[in-house]
Amino acid sequence: MKQYFPILTWLPAYRSGHLADDLLAAVIVTVMLIPQSLAYALLAGLPPEAGLYASILPLVAYAIFGTSSTLAVGPVAVVSLMTATAVGQVAVQGSIGYLNAAVMLALMSGVMLLAMGVLRLGFLANFLSHPVMTGFISASGLIIAISQLKHLLGIDASGHTLWQLVQSLWAHRGGIHGISLALGTGSLLFLLLIRRYLKPWLLRAGYSPRMADLCAKAGPVLAVVIATLIAAALDLNSQGLRILGLVPAGLPALTLPSLSLPLLEQLWMPALLISTIGFVESVSVAQALAAKRRQRIDPDQELIGLGSCNIVSSVSGGFPVTGGFSRSVVNFDAGAATPAAGAFTAVGIALATLFLTPFIFYLPLSVLGATIIVAVLSLVDLRAIPKTWRYSRHDALALIATLTVTLTAGVTTGILTGVVLSLLLYLHRTSRPHSAIVGRVPHTEHFRNIERHLVETDPALCILRIDEGLYFANARFLEDRVYAQMASQQKLQHLVLMCPAVNHIDASALEALEAINARLRDAGIQLHLSEVKGPVMDALRNSDFLDHLTGRIFLSTYQAWHALSTGAAHCPLSASAQHGYG
Amino acid sequence: MKQYFPILTWLPAYRSGHLADDLLAAVIVTVMLIPQSLAYALLAGLPPEAGLYASILPLVAYAIFGTSSTLAVGPVAVVSLMTATAVGQVAVQGSIGYLNAAVMLALMSGVMLLAMGVLRLGFLANFLSHPVMTGFISASGLIIAISQLKHLLGIDASGHTLWQLVQSLWAHRGGIHGISLALGTGSLLFLLLIRRYLKPWLLRAGYSPRMADLCAKAGPVLAVVIATLIAAALDLNSQGLRILGLVPAGLPALTLPSLSLPLLEQLWMPALLISTIGFVESVSVAQALAAKRRQRIDPDQELIGLGSCNIVSSVSGGFPVTGGFSRSVVNFDAGAATPAAGAFTAVGIALATLFLTPFIFYLPLSVLGATIIVAVLSLVDLRAIPKTWRYSRHDALALIATLTVTLTAGVTTGILTGVVLSLLLYLHRTSRPHSAIVGRVPHTEHFRNIERHLVETDPALCILRIDEGLYFANARFLEDRVYAQMASQQKLQHLVLMCPAVNHIDASALEALEAINARLRDAGIQLHLSEVKGPVMDALRNSDFLDHLTGRIFLSTYQAWHALSTGAAHCPLSASAQHGYG
Repeated sequence: MKQYFPILTWLPAYRSGHLADDLLAAVIVTVMLIPQSLAYALLAGLPPEAGLYASILPLVAYAIFGTSSTLAVGPVAVVSLMTATAVGQVAVQGSIGYLNAAVMLALMSGVMLLAMGVLRLGFLANFLSHPVMTGFISASGLIIAISQLKHLLGIDASGHTLWQLVQSLWAHRGGIHGISLALGTGSLLFLLLIRRYLKPWLLRAGYSPRMADLCAKAGPVLAVVIATLIAAALDLNSQGLRILGLVPAGLPALTLPSLSLPLLEQLWMPALLISTIGFVESVSVAQALAAKRRQRIDPDQELIGLGSCNIVSSVSGGFPVTGGFSRSVVNFDAGAATPAAGAFTAVGIALATLFLTPFIFYLPLSVLGATIIVAVLSLVDLRAIPKTWRYSRHDALALIATLTVTLTAGVTTGILTGVVLSLLLYLHRTSRPHSAIVGRVPHTEHFRNIERHLVETDPALCILRIDEGLYFANARFLEDRVYAQMASQQKLQHLVLMCPAVNHIDASALEALEAINARLRDAGIQLHLSEVKGPVMDALRNSDFLDHLTGRIFLSTYQAWHALSTGAAHCPLSASAQHGYG
Repeated sequence: MKQYFPILTWLPAYRSGHLADDLLAAVIVTVMLIPQSLAYALLAGLPPEAGLYASILPLVAYAIFGTSSTLAVGPVAVVSLMTATAVGQVAVQGSIGYLNAAVMLALMSGVMLLAMGVLRLGFLANFLSHPVMTGFISASGLIIAISQLKHLLGIDASGHTLWQLVQSLWAHRGGIHGISLALGTGSLLFLLLIRRYLKPWLLRAGYSPRMADLCAKAGPVLAVVIATLIAAALDLNSQGLRILGLVPAGLPALTLPSLSLPLLEQLWMPALLISTIGFVESVSVAQALAAKRRQRIDPDQELIGLGSCNIVSSVSGGFPVTGGFSRSVVNFDAGAATPAAGAFTAVGIALATLFLTPFIFYLPLSVLGATIIVAVLSLVDLRAIPKTWRYSRHDALALIATLTVTLTAGVTTGILTGVVLSLLLYLHRTSRPHSAIVGRVPHTEHFRNIERHLVETDPALCILRIDEGLYFANARFLEDRVYAQMASQQKLQHLVLMCPAVNHIDASALEALEAINARLRDAGIQLHLSEVKGPVMDALRNSDFLDHLTGRIFLSTYQAWHALSTGAAHCPLSASAQHGYG
């Protein structure tokens, strides 16, 4: 019970000291979340209230099912963009069908996450390598930032790729609206200045780093409040400024989305990607914050937690949600002690839904757009490209491909390209594992690569070290490597596979070993193994490989050398050491 | 030049002694190939002459571009089945469109193989693990055998899955034709008896094993000849026996298939699978036979060889071809010395196309069906299931899934299921690598798992050994494992990652290590590494990880223990050794 309902663990231990901390954090996060939830709803192409609805029940669900004490769940930028892209392909924005599809996407995503949690399939998220995530998030950030330019310019524009957006913006360039532009760029400048200078200034003024940080992060709220007041005072909407307008007051009605099979078929892949991306983002934040307090989160239970968040988001008229990075950090810094902080935030948003909607009527969309741009620009991390390039060409290739394809062909194609490419590159790397013919370091029991060291070799003996687990991707390489050696070393009588780095041998590799054993036997050569690891040896004992093995299993390579060397061993730099492997 | 045209290597070295060997092998393979090529053309749903055409120019192309001296290229059972399935989905059997689609499939497959060869993408074939290939080939064998029952029964039936075939056969059960059934089951019995008893009998009669083997394999030819003579003598076709009928005499005309973009879109996936399956089958045979003579094949050049075979098959009215198992073994046993044997076989088939067609007019289809059934039953290897199950549950699961899905949902779905499942299972396994908290074996420099051995531990020190390369699939596991240890071992001051089995650290794992380092630093714990391999250390030096690392890199774990142990080390079985890891 306690495993599936973490609330049963933390609630009985709740102390009054926690209450003050959690309440303070909840107030701060609520203030931050109100404009964010409105902005991300617009980003997803939905009415603003959908953002508020997605920030009430999901937070309660996470408090019940989640394992992180500080994760702040709700609408986030990247998932909102993915929602807009997915739903935009099956319905027209503004239609009932669009809203229904978004709600259904949340339900599907929730059910998928829940199923993955119950079936312990969290490892599926591992398909998203770090470079792929980095490339994808950076590209998403750029697309989101550019998509918000339309609000700053006060024009219409649409599209889900860089190219579509730029084309659409260019086509509408005639309609640029002065007041929108002024308010938008003004807010943008204000936010960038706050982000850059407020925190150092507050620190110099003697505030605590935590306080300074929280104030700096309150910038967007301040911008929204000031701009709304200006717009209301000057009645700027009558001069063409686009404002948020009427947001219906009141709590969301609880309903199930109308399910449809064709919609299900069109949305399952985006739902799966949204679930996975959302889970990976959320777990990374939760894990980092938990570790700072020496706490733990349980990734499989997190799947269940996020799954239930999305299901209740769906039934209360919201769209896909997940744990957000910046909001969780604020929650953490504000001192949230338990998941109760999230539940209190939900109460705050519920109150806002009931009473605050008249006050945000005049909120200018250009200012909301500016807050999104500033928020997502921190997601764009182009410096990761040279950094990754220096470390690994393969990983950099995966990053650049994901970034480029996401920008040019959209989020779904981008992320799938990244996943497939990183799998291909991994298989490519492990399909040609590092391996070496080794010889004996004279007068020792050590064996080293004959190409790098002056070592003793024996024309009748070949010791081959493979530095990788043996599995289907490199089974053929192993055969090829051995047959090549067999063809080039004509006096060969004993081949020793040195296995200290072989962590696993799967059925394909076992088959390859059996084929090698048979081929070598036909050619009068014995096959031996040395330094086989315990678990690998256990597995081999479950096959009949050891019954057919022409040679022996040696505990150490030196024992193999001692037993098999003909005594005709050549000293370093002799002819045979040179042609040992061509 | 010589790399891409292996003929430039073997032809100048051709000796007269080779000629007799190659000619003998060519005659034997030609006799075997004539009925096979007709049968596999029918299996692919094509007119019989397409099988002959696919056995002329492709053999010449392989002699020029191939690297195996004994591989016998031509139509094979599994690829013919895959061709029938793919083409059956875009055209009606018997139509011009069907023939054109088959020819186009060969062209696409050829171009893909050629491109994979030039781009050195042969590693893609590694996606097909041995259990997946076994399951797929067995299922294909079963489907082919059942599909040929219609010929034995003299009825019409169609379908690409077990279920469709059985349903179709059942629906037509009323039309079973007595003479077809008698001839078909008679041939089947004859072939099975020959296969079972002829070789031992010939051996006892004093023939050489090689001769006995070749005679036993000539069984199908004998059956075909006898049955054709009977059918012709008794004019059985007038009594309803289906016969091969008129096969146009003469060499194929050289033309390009009419290309069409929609066809290209529908056929690219089947073409890719046919290429890969064909390549894997072919390379396995070629490699096994080459190793028996201590020769080598070059897998990348094999791609180019098979690619050119399929391209010339396409332009000469044939369908997809590859290296066949049984025919290559016969070629090898008959003594083929060089690829010239293949070229001579092509001449043999060309002569047959010119002069033999009148003689095969009366060939009963039921007998051809019987020869296919006997040939493919040797592909069905159900004993591999328990054998693989004993060795590895994961591999057995992949085998069974591929077998079942291929039987029930067809070849394309089957092979894709197998590939995806084996990748998932591999990622699942490596995502939770074997790892252990180790302690010092008292009075030694050895370190062993604290859960299995009586070892010394230190409450301020944790040594974690990971037995797997670190990459995106297990980066998260590593973080989770370390944070769990950090949460459970409250006095921890030093964490040592022991890396003797870490063959690689990719960018995702590096990021995880950086996160771990930062989290541990925040908690006042130092991170150290020990026994880092040379190539891994080289890679780490290309990142800034070592600059941020709070601890040190130790050459041996004992050095780490010596430097970091507080002296408060607990003896075996003390309290702390017990709660060292929960």
